[in-house]
Amino acid sequence: MLNIQIEKTNQPKQKPEPEELVFGAVFTDHMFVMDYEISQGWHNPKIVPYQPITLEPSAMVFHYGQEMFEGMKAYKGVDGRVLLFRPEKNIERTNKTNDRICIPQIDEDDMLQAIKALVDIDKDWIPNAGGTALYIRPFIIATDPYLGVRPSNTYKFMVIACPVGAYYKEGINPVKIWVETEYVRAVPGGVGEAKTGGNYAASIKAQMKAKERGYTQVLWLDGVERKYVEEVGTMNVFFKINGEIITPELTGSILAGVTRNSVIELLNAWGERVVERRITIDEIYEAHKAGILEEVFGTGTAAVISPVGELNYRGDMITINNNEIGALSQKIYDTITGLQTGAIKDEFGWTVEV
Amino acid sequence: MLNIQIEKTNQPKQKPEPEELVFGAVFTDHMFVMDYEISQGWHNPKIVPYQPITLEPSAMVFHYGQEMFEGMKAYKGVDGRVLLFRPEKNIERTNKTNDRICIPQIDEDDMLQAIKALVDIDKDWIPNAGGTALYIRPFIIATDPYLGVRPSNTYKFMVIACPVGAYYKEGINPVKIWVETEYVRAVPGGVGEAKTGGNYAASIKAQMKAKERGYTQVLWLDGVERKYVEEVGTMNVFFKINGEIITPELTGSILAGVTRNSVIELLNAWGERVVERRITIDEIYEAHKAGILEEVFGTGTAAVISPVGELNYRGDMITINNNEIGALSQKIYDTITGLQTGAIKDEFGWTVEV
Ligand SMILES: Cc1ncc(COP(=O)(O)O)c(C=O)c1O
Ligand SMILES: Cc1ncc(COP(=O)(O)O)c(C=O)c1O
Repeated sequence: MLNIQIEKTNQPKQKPEPEELVFGAVFTDHMFVMDYEISQGWHNPKIVPYQPITLEPSAMVFHYGQEMFEGMKAYKGVDGRVLLFRPEKNIERTNKTNDRICIPQIDEDDMLQAIKALVDIDKDWIPNAGGTALYIRPFIIATDPYLGVRPSNTYKFMVIACPVGAYYKEGINPVKIWVETEYVRAVPGGVGEAKTGGNYAASIKAQMKAKERGYTQVLWLDGVERKYVEEVGTMNVFFKINGEIITPELTGSILAGVTRNSVIELLNAWGERVVERRITIDEIYEAHKAGILEEVFGTGTAAVISPVGELNYRGDMITINNNEIGALSQKIYDTITGLQTGAIKDEFGWTVEV
Repeated sequence: MLNIQIEKTNQPKQKPEPEELVFGAVFTDHMFVMDYEISQGWHNPKIVPYQPITLEPSAMVFHYGQEMFEGMKAYKGVDGRVLLFRPEKNIERTNKTNDRICIPQIDEDDMLQAIKALVDIDKDWIPNAGGTALYIRPFIIATDPYLGVRPSNTYKFMVIACPVGAYYKEGINPVKIWVETEYVRAVPGGVGEAKTGGNYAASIKAQMKAKERGYTQVLWLDGVERKYVEEVGTMNVFFKINGEIITPELTGSILAGVTRNSVIELLNAWGERVVERRITIDEIYEAHKAGILEEVFGTGTAAVISPVGELNYRGDMITINNNEIGALSQKIYDTITGLQTGAIKDEFGWTVEV
């Protein structure tokens, strides 16, 4: 158990109107901070008013990118309870990321306690309207004031949070996706399965290229053979082909999404055929040609389910399911969002009350 | 021309004794800072006392690793002049990195002016003793207080500097190098040729693994076929085989080192046979077996030349040149360090006076 010191703000901020909520730009009144030093381990846990942080210009995070983050949401349940969705999954992934980039492990119970404490103190910030939530961002940065490549000896673990609006304001619109053939996100042996800043910096250029061409996001192919499908932007991806649901297996270069895992477990519970395996972009195009590519959708914390309406691979554009959300995608979306807000009874034990 | 506002420190720090100099831990009295905003471009250039910086916890650099850095040195010349070594190369590379990770370009003359201005104001910090120098660290960080993957709209460009001791205190000792087969640094299509934090965070784990086994650094193999030699830690690498000097060609996943380029130009000027091509680790081991692997050395700003005395590839250890520095390595080292300090007349136009 952490002994969290709490300093409450005496200048609470104005909360944004529900219809003004944008993603990731407005933060709640408080933040959680905890420090790490080799001799003391993680120590000095506290909740303080949301405020800037001060670091040496030589802090290693600025130079060598030794940093990690997580992303999850708290929902105002239909009955007024505050619910987290599978936080233990994000916490487990935190330590996997930490291991890969040599950040010290963090106690799982302590991390959950920190998240709950922050959500609790800022619970009035959780919006009520359908589809809204409080986005929670735990992150760790390397703070040693030292120029040289090695693990830092000091770190800061922080949790900040922002109220976010409904991802889909007018029904779920399928997105147009650009299949990227020039740039690569990750390869086995690299850090693709870790949630660390460098993966995202590396992805921006392809994303801009897709945007310029009128596409919402990039579909990444594997970096070795350049033909296996990996992820879509910051989402995992699923294909429904001839009644079977396929998602790329976790080969070391793909982030193990919490939503991905939830979708697989849900489909299994429904008795659907789900396969985790490598799948080439050619196979997807062939399925389309054969008329058996039924649905394509991305999965992630932000949108939960994001149907793909169009793919562009080397100029070859295909439209999926008439550019409409598929029945299965809709059912998964309704079920997961229902579970997250407590509208549907949670038989999986996925929701955790704050 | 930048109009640099200068605020001098009124509390100059104690300079470390020459024999106490360590790399990257002590910083000079001042730092250069310049901001970027879309509407103003790079603006507000200033030199201020070296001090911490304050950022929002949501600053993009902490989450998405949109950051870059450079590394170069200023030398106190034999005649008292202060010399930079090919700064235009680092500046050119800055903009290449910026392009890859969507940081706005920086004017080349402005960047040189900023570096010169900082070195000039802190010139008393440049140590005198042989082998010492002032290490200069320009870097850029993304500062938008925003959680979402896209290029930042605001940045900070900074230059900090630290006096560094002689890399080799008792003659040049060859290093033991671990050939890494599990982890990968970069692949074509990724960010390996950019000097961005994520590459370094990704490299720490393999480096620790090598250290634990008693090796100084890692030799990276390519991430696609896992057989071509790429780099050694934060150095490029050269092999002398049967009189011919070979260095991996720049295929997109290798950093284009300034020292690498200088070594190639020097060897060309000397009429040596230098080849930039892909080379497998097997070819190197075969050359050793045939008795024609004459020298192996790394090249980089920190050590200039670092001879490799031993390689370990899958448990197969080979000793190179009797674990002694080779004649060619020594000659290159003496020439480049001689040029850098002005001890050797610069016929290449490589040195730039501050
Ligand atoms: C690269 C990447 N892939 C997939 C995901 C989806 O993961 P999750 O479902 O845990 O949000 C994310 C977002 O976290 C991501 O950043
Ligand atoms: C990955 C990497 N390779 C090679 C080098 C050598 O480059 P340079 O000679 O410009 O110092 C460096 C250091 O800058 C580096 O970080």
